[in-house]
Amino acid sequence: MLSEGQSSVEYHLRSPKDVNSTSLGSLESPTSSPEPFENESIRKPLPVPKCLSNRAATGEKGMLAGGGACTPYPRSFEAMKLACPGMYYTYAKTIRKEIMEGLRYILQTKNQYTFAYHGSGSTGTTAVMDNLIEQGDKVAVGVYGHWSSIAADIAERLGANVIRLKKPLGSRLTLEEIEKALSEHKPKVLYLLHGESTTGILQPLDGIGEACEKYGTILAVDLVSTVAQIPIEMDRMKIDVVMMNTQKAIGGVVGLAPVSYSPKAIAIIRNRKTPPRVYQTDVLEQAREWLIEEPKWYQVESCLHSVSLALLHMLREGLANIVDEGIENVWARHDQSSRYIFDRAEEMGLEFVVPVKEDRLPGTLLVKCPKGKDAYKVTGYMWDKHRIELSTGFGPPTIGKCIRVGLFGENARLDVAETIMDALKDSLSSPETNA
Amino acid sequence: MLSEGQSSVEYHLRSPKDVNSTSLGSLESPTSSPEPFENESIRKPLPVPKCLSNRAATGEKGMLAGGGACTPYPRSFEAMKLACPGMYYTYAKTIRKEIMEGLRYILQTKNQYTFAYHGSGSTGTTAVMDNLIEQGDKVAVGVYGHWSSIAADIAERLGANVIRLKKPLGSRLTLEEIEKALSEHKPKVLYLLHGESTTGILQPLDGIGEACEKYGTILAVDLVSTVAQIPIEMDRMKIDVVMMNTQKAIGGVVGLAPVSYSPKAIAIIRNRKTPPRVYQTDVLEQAREWLIEEPKWYQVESCLHSVSLALLHMLREGLANIVDEGIENVWARHDQSSRYIFDRAEEMGLEFVVPVKEDRLPGTLLVKCPKGKDAYKVTGYMWDKHRIELSTGFGPPTIGKCIRVGLFGENARLDVAETIMDALKDSLSSPETNA
Repeated sequence: MLSEGQSSVEYHLRSPKDVNSTSLGSLESPTSSPEPFENESIRKPLPVPKCLSNRAATGEKGMLAGGGACTPYPRSFEAMKLACPGMYYTYAKTIRKEIMEGLRYILQTKNQYTFAYHGSGSTGTTAVMDNLIEQGDKVAVGVYGHWSSIAADIAERLGANVIRLKKPLGSRLTLEEIEKALSEHKPKVLYLLHGESTTGILQPLDGIGEACEKYGTILAVDLVSTVAQIPIEMDRMKIDVVMMNTQKAIGGVVGLAPVSYSPKAIAIIRNRKTPPRVYQTDVLEQAREWLIEEPKWYQVESCLHSVSLALLHMLREGLANIVDEGIENVWARHDQSSRYIFDRAEEMGLEFVVPVKEDRLPGTLLVKCPKGKDAYKVTGYMWDKHRIELSTGFGPPTIGKCIRVGLFGENARLDVAETIMDALKDSLSSPETNA
Repeated sequence: MLSEGQSSVEYHLRSPKDVNSTSLGSLESPTSSPEPFENESIRKPLPVPKCLSNRAATGEKGMLAGGGACTPYPRSFEAMKLACPGMYYTYAKTIRKEIMEGLRYILQTKNQYTFAYHGSGSTGTTAVMDNLIEQGDKVAVGVYGHWSSIAADIAERLGANVIRLKKPLGSRLTLEEIEKALSEHKPKVLYLLHGESTTGILQPLDGIGEACEKYGTILAVDLVSTVAQIPIEMDRMKIDVVMMNTQKAIGGVVGLAPVSYSPKAIAIIRNRKTPPRVYQTDVLEQAREWLIEEPKWYQVESCLHSVSLALLHMLREGLANIVDEGIENVWARHDQSSRYIFDRAEEMGLEFVVPVKEDRLPGTLLVKCPKGKDAYKVTGYMWDKHRIELSTGFGPPTIGKCIRVGLFGENARLDVAETIMDALKDSLSSPETNA
């Protein structure tokens, strides 16, 4: 049995008295018992839904290259069918430890608090905001697209005093603008999207970690569109907290939200006066689930929630795939295929949403739908004729007006890039896609 | 393009001006551009993690019958490997609609707002609390075990004024106690666990819906341990909101948290003065993702977050499996195997944590570890010798002191029940399990 003394949560929602067994009584049974209710009986049920009756899902094949969820690495996808033992056995513990090692590798960090939440990418954004901020804390959010705008909303819902650093479509913040905002507002947290996939912009991070350090601000970065795709060195770049998803360059499917917290971020979280709003994504609770901290005395490992071995297998194999290829080779492969689609788009005379070449988010091509063409017809044609999913942009103001291609993980290869751009050329030249 | 007029969210975090494209600029590109940063270059990466290098996960076989995540239905588990198209195509929309139909069937409800969140079961608990309560609202929570205690904590973190209706170990609330609490506190929400798997108790629900109606209280129920296992008729029982997970009697793996909200609950949520704290699980946002409400003008269907087709396939096939068997037959099969393990436990002279027979949670056997035996050695022996996962209880005060068996979905069969109880008999009679 493990000692509770190892617990490092400084606040208590329940009093210590509540935590021990007295609140629920001991194993001695109650002497008097309540009268039982009448048992519910089985009554006439509703009719069976015809859509499910004697009909199984078939799946549907296609290449996912629209910049959202991507075609997963076969190794990661296939891993979901591996037999799953209980979450408390050595096997399941090992899988978790291996995932943490793999995440540290792709992030180039030594952060101990590197693990994955269950949920989608936005679970990660919410969790990071919720762990870092308390009611009324100042959070500066770079707003240069749909997802960054949502990140600001997420922080506001959680009670933060949000400062939106807005930029017009197709542009990003300069280091000078960021330094000015830090100096003026002294926010507790600066939250930036490294890549804003809805506008196709890359927000460079060089110098920002140092600026945040100068002003005592925590730098939190959304790496959803860039991790395992372009070089990221979390420690060297002085990034305090990052969040990701599993369906882009990590090469899996939607289901987990990896995160990493620096020792500085963890120290700040330990000194909170109030607990994070969401119990399940409380980093100090999750640290027990991921065997980073000692479980409480009554926990075998953790009893925060059941973990999904199927999803852990998926993530573990996505990471192992990257490890076996070598992160430098993965970066180089993404760089090569990204350059190819960008060059082809220029050759085809397509206009980029981001005018400055160096500001374009690698791997995410976002071009304006050519005059005389209907963006939805173009993507519809791509799916119907070529079984390739592209998108027409995402969120205001790009949706329906653009063509977006995302090349991540399995699809970040020259041959795939060529197939996609050939198909796009066909789609754009077809009269079926005319406005 | 869909009209924004269909939106039914009454509050606005962003001003209407922010929501339209002006906040991000139009598609006209900015005339001046910021100076590019120096590009990050590829530097010498950290060494590859040996635990992942040239090593693939193998999976590990065993029967999961510890009352947590259970052995899934093969049909549900296998469905995760079906090819996944993009989330906006007809196929993916159909899968979502079928899931909603299947959930309504197993809940015996006509509620339109019946869908699944991405995450674990506790995502569902958090979401239900967060959608129903605003800062300072009164929530009464029945506390008669670990998970119900956690539910109270979850509500408190989210800002609720929590009234804990505590019962000693092995007992549950009576209708009279509940009516008294409703009358005294007039809570906005009464939150009950139908089954508290950590103490093995069933909280009967008959009459509680009517009592809540009388006092204007919303009845929210956690069905994690009972759905698709014992008869539940959500509408007839006047339950306003329910939450579940996917790894018990629904027969899948951890990853989604199904919920259902009654029209009354939705009406109350629409009249909130402040938005829920968590953006991602906001029921009115999710309603667009699940095609219950019209998407906003800039959304193809929704852009709340990417959905996991692999997990949707898993849930869809778990539900279809139940539909094809017939919910009454599924209930009967669970009842039969549950009675069997309870009878065998009595035959073996084991002492139940819940003394009153009618109060015992069907499908979850929780007995005290016999004197002279070590609970961890008993469960260790079960795994090592029989490849059957049991648990020693869960959370204070049962963990390490009990033996817990959970029979759900695939395992709720007489032959499996017999195998488990024979193995348990062997384990308890082995000198290797002595204290």
